Amino acid sequence: MASTETDKGWRSRLHEIIYESNTRAGKAFDVALLIAIFTSIIVVMLDSVESIHQQHGQLLKYVEWGYTILFTVEYILRLISIRQPTGYIFSPLGIIDLIALIPSYLSIFFIGAQSLLVFRALRLLRVFRIFKLSRFLTEINFLTVALKGSLRKISIFLLTVLSLTIILGSVMYLVEKRENGFSNIPESIYWAIVTITTVGYGDISPVTPMGKFVASIVMLIGYAIIAVPTGILTHDLAIAARQKKELPEACPTCGREGHDSDATFCKFCGSALL
Amino acid sequence: MASTETDKGWRSRLHEIIYESNTRAGKAFDVALLIAIFTSIIVVMLDSVESIHQQHGQLLKYVEWGYTILFTVEYILRLISIRQPTGYIFSPLGIIDLIALIPSYLSIFFIGAQSLLVFRALRLLRVFRIFKLSRFLTEINFLTVALKGSLRKISIFLLTVLSLTIILGSVMYLVEKRENGFSNIPESIYWAIVTITTVGYGDISPVTPMGKFVASIVMLIGYAIIAVPTGILTHDLAIAARQKKELPEACPTCGREGHDSDATFCKFCGSALL
Amino acid sequence: MASTETDKGWRSRLHEIIYESNTRAGKAFDVALLIAIFTSIIVVMLDSVESIHQQHGQLLKYVEWGYTILFTVEYILRLISIRQPTGYIFSPLGIIDLIALIPSYLSIFFIGAQSLLVFRALRLLRVFRIFKLSRFLTEINFLTVALKGSLRKISIFLLTVLSLTIILGSVMYLVEKRENGFSNIPESIYWAIVTITTVGYGDISPVTPMGKFVASIVMLIGYAIIAVPTGILTHDLAIAARQKKELPEACPTCGREGHDSDATFCKFCGSALL
Amino acid sequence: MASTETDKGWRSRLHEIIYESNTRAGKAFDVALLIAIFTSIIVVMLDSVESIHQQHGQLLKYVEWGYTILFTVEYILRLISIRQPTGYIFSPLGIIDLIALIPSYLSIFFIGAQSLLVFRALRLLRVFRIFKLSRFLTEINFLTVALKGSLRKISIFLLTVLSLTIILGSVMYLVEKRENGFSNIPESIYWAIVTITTVGYGDISPVTPMGKFVASIVMLIGYAIIAVPTGILTHDLAIAARQKKELPEACPTCGREGHDSDATFCKFCGSALL
Repeated sequence: MASTETDKGWRSRLHEIIYESNTRAGKAFDVALLIAIFTSIIVVMLDSVESIHQQHGQLLKYVEWGYTILFTVEYILRLISIRQPTGYIFSPLGIIDLIALIPSYLSIFFIGAQSLLVFRALRLLRVFRIFKLSRFLTEINFLTVALKGSLRKISIFLLTVLSLTIILGSVMYLVEKRENGFSNIPESIYWAIVTITTVGYGDISPVTPMGKFVASIVMLIGYAIIAVPTGILTHDLAIAARQKKELPEACPTCGREGHDSDATFCKFCGSALL
Repeated sequence: MASTETDKGWRSRLHEIIYESNTRAGKAFDVALLIAIFTSIIVVMLDSVESIHQQHGQLLKYVEWGYTILFTVEYILRLISIRQPTGYIFSPLGIIDLIALIPSYLSIFFIGAQSLLVFRALRLLRVFRIFKLSRFLTEINFLTVALKGSLRKISIFLLTVLSLTIILGSVMYLVEKRENGFSNIPESIYWAIVTITTVGYGDISPVTPMGKFVASIVMLIGYAIIAVPTGILTHDLAIAARQKKELPEACPTCGREGHDSDATFCKFCGSALL
Repeated sequence: MASTETDKGWRSRLHEIIYESNTRAGKAFDVALLIAIFTSIIVVMLDSVESIHQQHGQLLKYVEWGYTILFTVEYILRLISIRQPTGYIFSPLGIIDLIALIPSYLSIFFIGAQSLLVFRALRLLRVFRIFKLSRFLTEINFLTVALKGSLRKISIFLLTVLSLTIILGSVMYLVEKRENGFSNIPESIYWAIVTITTVGYGDISPVTPMGKFVASIVMLIGYAIIAVPTGILTHDLAIAARQKKELPEACPTCGREGHDSDATFCKFCGSALL
Repeated sequence: MASTETDKGWRSRLHEIIYESNTRAGKAFDVALLIAIFTSIIVVMLDSVESIHQQHGQLLKYVEWGYTILFTVEYILRLISIRQPTGYIFSPLGIIDLIALIPSYLSIFFIGAQSLLVFRALRLLRVFRIFKLSRFLTEINFLTVALKGSLRKISIFLLTVLSLTIILGSVMYLVEKRENGFSNIPESIYWAIVTITTVGYGDISPVTPMGKFVASIVMLIGYAIIAVPTGILTHDLAIAARQKKELPEACPTCGREGHDSDATFCKFCGSALL
């Protein structure tokens, strides 16, 4: 019985370190993990550079396996320290952790799977979870609320932009000849996106006077409508700021603070927030 | 007489399905139509790709004719189910529907008319009418009010930008030599638009030191004045938001909601809105 | 005596037509002038196109002389119909009108002066004076007030951007070699402006890894600081809107409206505005 | 004793001229310094142009040494006129002043050190200190407060953008082949930054259809998220404006004005500001 209790204590301590960040050990773990993720991505990056690969390829391979083992151990620890492992496995971060691990093991059986290691970059997203637990919390919360409010309006905007690029790209396909780079409609739509977003690579650009005229219209549209998402977000930031003031700062029952702005119940004692 | 009544009922039911979206059948029709439009555009796109056209050209031609027949039937149904067919024929959506149909029939008589099929992309605009009837209504209304308020100010802005590009383009034509790509004034104006909108293809770019100096000024102007439309729209969004609150949510007579923000009379019972 | 009076009446009527726009004749004159300016610019544009010049060069020359005579007559009429001709001659619009006229006459004596005709494009600026008198007045006034308020802040911003481009351009000159297009510091500064304004021609672009790293920083700076002028202007638009409400709509003495927002005295009767 | 007093007076007068700007001599010194800095940078610029260097290289070298001596004298005067020289030496402006001086002296011993003269451009930053003392003070203060408030949020934004470019760059490395310019992951990340910031040089651009599809997504992301920093800053400008009103304009004890908006104590008499 005592052994079970100790075991429970051991697992719950591990859980505290790995999943939480209010303790000193938890914070240290988070920082160490972030450094490991960051350096592992740099190793993958370096290995992709031809000259470095030829000189230090063998060394980098060992280091990559070192990181694979490290992250595998972390993955197993995450599994055994949580009460419901499936909750972690199927969470977005859990899936990313797995996707970052698989390529290394696949590369034993399949040549070329090594290149999938770039998916390790996805683990960078963990940076936001770690930030969440620090003093950036309020700002991230604030931005998230505003972005959520803008999401629907910005979706409509992006849909409009996409429709515009399909229509304008199709028109451009008619106006410019195939020889001028607008070889098919998808290509022309790609050009329209490059132009309306004001990126302007110049890999495809209009040649005929009529094409330049249409292109000018596309550019002016792109230049003018950039105002729309900005206006929307600025507006929703103001609304989010107004709501923040009206939201409960502290739970009326237990008095603890730090609730999400969309919370209706205290996350510490569960009583209703006003 | 009974037959006339049934006929009337049949036509009014069809009208409900095709033109309205509050019933289940109406919603299903809208979604089906959107899918048909979208897939028909993809078929036109694929056909424009040389390699696909050579392999599956015959098949795609059949599919295109299938869509032509489908949209022709839809067009005829729209005509017979509405009380005033001219109202639909001369409405923007009616004209677009016709423009999307004609090329297929023209291609029987004229070789090359097939390429005008790209105008089918214009039917994508129907997406906004369909969205209008869903829960995006409020957001679209809100954005439309703000954009209407900004329209005049943004027109002035675009007029200023156009005047600037004509003046700066003309100056650049003098500064840079013909050999450097600025071969005539329209071309130079095209360059000024490419530059001031920060697209920057690089197909024409200044070569002489003086030209680079003028170009730098054009760029800095473009970079600074992008603020103008954004500022205008943000401002008008705030005004639109304030007005929305003051607008009637429900008709005081019949109690029904969903009126446009610029409505002065209830669209259901015709009584004045407060 | 009667003759002098008639003469005075004739001149004051001419003044009304040319300089004012509240009468029907004045409006007609403004519109006719705008059309004349616009078409004269199109003629200069067409003449700059090599192929059109070779085919219709002689015709276009006659048309250009026609416009020159027309604008000369307009200039003389402006001079004789105003009480203080020097007031017009040295006003910005007066100087532009003169600059637009001189090249034609210079071309009689100097070959090549013809090319200075492009300065006729400057006359486009008259469009704003004409607009001022129409119903766009309120919007232009509103934007002008906001822009005036922003001017100082946006100057500081542009100064910061310029300092940044000089510093970053100089750094890039050190980092990239002369062979890579960064052949001297002014060239590098030109590159920095092209990059920080997100224009990105690609005529000069970094080649070395270190150069690409510095370029990435320049781009991210440019992408982030575009927010500054936008934020400033949006803010000043809100202030201008607030002030507009507090400003007198009508003169308390004569009751007439339409005063500029920065006016302290009635422009009709001269009494102090509240 | 009298000599010490005179000496003290001489040093304090020098300090007034060099470090302060409320006196006439102080203002003159600041303007003269700004002109010296500006012209010295132009000399370095001109010297970097190959053709000018070959023609006037010797002359420019003398001029550059002239500026070096001038700035050395200024540096020494700054040191002896301040009570705590270390305070100036280790201040940002002090370090910049030193960095701008060293290259000239290094060039005596090391060939090539001359090229480090470009760091003289850093002295341009002094322009902001000089502006601070002029009537731009309020605007700079206002912008600084708003930017400080935005800093954390914009850091989060830039971190997100960087993570996105690493992930999207890595994906692009997989999608496009090495032959198409995406030769390694760092290169691909550079491309992602060029694209997401809408700079779009076009030195590296996608070739395969799949690559163009991914690139389109990157562009649309970049086009949509530019709204974020703008929205943030606009919001913080409004907050800064509101706070400014609530801040003390004049010290309640001594009545003097011009306190920083974040000051809690009067900088003239040291009493608490309300």
